[in-house]
Amino acid sequence: MPKRMKLLGLSGSLRAGSHNTAVLRAMTSLVPQGTTLTIHDWRDVPMFDADQLTNEPAPVKALKDAIAEADGVVIVSPEYNYSIPGPLKNALDWASRPGYQSVFKHKPVAVLGASPGVIGTARGQQHLKVVLMAMLAEIYPQPEICIGSVASRFDAEGKLQEATAELLSQMLEGFVAWAAR
Amino acid sequence: MPKRMKLLGLSGSLRAGSHNTAVLRAMTSLVPQGTTLTIHDWRDVPMFDADQLTNEPAPVKALKDAIAEADGVVIVSPEYNYSIPGPLKNALDWASRPGYQSVFKHKPVAVLGASPGVIGTARGQQHLKVVLMAMLAEIYPQPEICIGSVASRFDAEGKLQEATAELLSQMLEGFVAWAAR
Amino acid sequence: MPKRMKLLGLSGSLRAGSHNTAVLRAMTSLVPQGTTLTIHDWRDVPMFDADQLTNEPAPVKALKDAIAEADGVVIVSPEYNYSIPGPLKNALDWASRPGYQSVFKHKPVAVLGASPGVIGTARGQQHLKVVLMAMLAEIYPQPEICIGSVASRFDAEGKLQEATAELLSQMLEGFVAWAAR
Amino acid sequence: MPKRMKLLGLSGSLRAGSHNTAVLRAMTSLVPQGTTLTIHDWRDVPMFDADQLTNEPAPVKALKDAIAEADGVVIVSPEYNYSIPGPLKNALDWASRPGYQSVFKHKPVAVLGASPGVIGTARGQQHLKVVLMAMLAEIYPQPEICIGSVASRFDAEGKLQEATAELLSQMLEGFVAWAAR
Repeated sequence: MPKRMKLLGLSGSLRAGSHNTAVLRAMTSLVPQGTTLTIHDWRDVPMFDADQLTNEPAPVKALKDAIAEADGVVIVSPEYNYSIPGPLKNALDWASRPGYQSVFKHKPVAVLGASPGVIGTARGQQHLKVVLMAMLAEIYPQPEICIGSVASRFDAEGKLQEATAELLSQMLEGFVAWAAR
Repeated sequence: MPKRMKLLGLSGSLRAGSHNTAVLRAMTSLVPQGTTLTIHDWRDVPMFDADQLTNEPAPVKALKDAIAEADGVVIVSPEYNYSIPGPLKNALDWASRPGYQSVFKHKPVAVLGASPGVIGTARGQQHLKVVLMAMLAEIYPQPEICIGSVASRFDAEGKLQEATAELLSQMLEGFVAWAAR
Repeated sequence: MPKRMKLLGLSGSLRAGSHNTAVLRAMTSLVPQGTTLTIHDWRDVPMFDADQLTNEPAPVKALKDAIAEADGVVIVSPEYNYSIPGPLKNALDWASRPGYQSVFKHKPVAVLGASPGVIGTARGQQHLKVVLMAMLAEIYPQPEICIGSVASRFDAEGKLQEATAELLSQMLEGFVAWAAR
Repeated sequence: MPKRMKLLGLSGSLRAGSHNTAVLRAMTSLVPQGTTLTIHDWRDVPMFDADQLTNEPAPVKALKDAIAEADGVVIVSPEYNYSIPGPLKNALDWASRPGYQSVFKHKPVAVLGASPGVIGTARGQQHLKVVLMAMLAEIYPQPEICIGSVASRFDAEGKLQEATAELLSQMLEGFVAWAAR
């Protein structure tokens, strides 16, 4: 029997009504049996300042601990200006220390994103992957999941539509199998 | 006679002893005659949250005004995890709104960076340029200036060494001429 | 009266039935009055080999001459593996010599692309722009034109649909005005 | 006892005196005991043309077979215009077919590069990794190996200097251990 897997979910958006957070929330009930996906709220991580590295703020420690304890990380993020949202990049910069020896080292990570338009964060995912490689994370190799026209993916009650849920469900199953190697 | 040009300088680092800020500070006295380079401190820009767009924080407004009033922008930034430092990306995300109609639209921008190692931010500059293009800025086309081994570029009194000063002086002259087209 | 502008068109695909070439072909009749857009066929450019730089093959010379004589270049390209098609990159590598002093230096260039899927080459355009910046080209700053679902953009007679033609027509008008600065 | 591992080496340069090929050649005798690193010459791979996919040229088949049979691939490449050399990208485009189901799928790949200047292909490696991820390869997560000032790394007899050889030897050992998981 495979071990029970604990996944950590990070949304790239701080906005209350964020579609990316909504997608991530929907994913918590799409994980394979025996797996949990817990969303970590990193909102209180302060602006990165290398002068504070020796006195790590509590929300940074909480983020790093959560990543360290997870068997894998799922990042669902919008793209801002064709790249990673500043706040998410800021949180990752904290988590990346010490360089090449951080909690992300050899950590399995899956990346996806959603956008109002058709592109679905295809550009931002490139930058996010380069950053994750710089932290020596192991990036789940998959045909990119770019959820375009995201508003139309939810019904009036806020439930994720079946086809998208199925896509994400399969992705999570593949990711868990890959991360368990 | 060419008009007097006002340049705005943005450092990518918040660290007090930042070498990138030191390079930018040195550049303020390397500008061609008739040109000024003023460093804008964006430290108080809060974490980007799209829910706050209609109620723009004062430091965001100050940043946007400073960019709007400048004839060109010079960004000197470290790279974090092969990409743009989170805090700088966060400030740029604020400044990028409204999308495709921001203060960066058609604004001449020069990009450079410094690092302790030899690479000199060559990777981070790629991401920064992609982001600036997403904001429709006009990026100064130059052989990239990647200031490696930056600590060795300053003497004991903190004065920038002659060769580097000369390189930056020429860059600023070229940038001003190009931006004045 | 503005001078008559000569644009050069480069397709990123060698395939006979290429949709990108079809888009570029349609664009030749969408240019503003007084402007011409001539497609240059670079198919015979051989594989780049630095050992042959001093003995430049004729198709390379033809490509470089065509770029040198143009007032601006329009590149319409698919993306292969999220990046620039190998053959196009190969042609650009030839054209980029001598480094930082090539025919692309300060040349106005507009980039767009089409794909069968929805992404419309959003990823490949990032790489293409980085490469063009490395050659010191001046890249037209515009909201990216990513022509997704390209097959549906043409009618049964192979005529580009009105909405797409209008978009490209406006882009060309904007590019010509920008390049004429 | 671990199985004997067969690695395939691809140089990104076709130039006879290529420093990247020289580095790769030196690496063939730096592999751990029981491992072989065989250089595959892809020089005869023709220009990619999707019209020829159903009639695959022999050098393409040879390249794909060599990749398929290898336990891991080591790519040592220069960067051209801050990106992947056109000829190498062309060979990879062939090898990437059929999309998401190619010989690169889940294939362990290590990337490094050398350059005459100090940057050591730091920019080109980013693009190469994005392309490899698009092919669902598994990229060896390591602090990037950017061999700058490459000419100085070899002695008068063309022998790789000790420190660089040691670095590459350690990298190969790490890569083999990682690929064997």
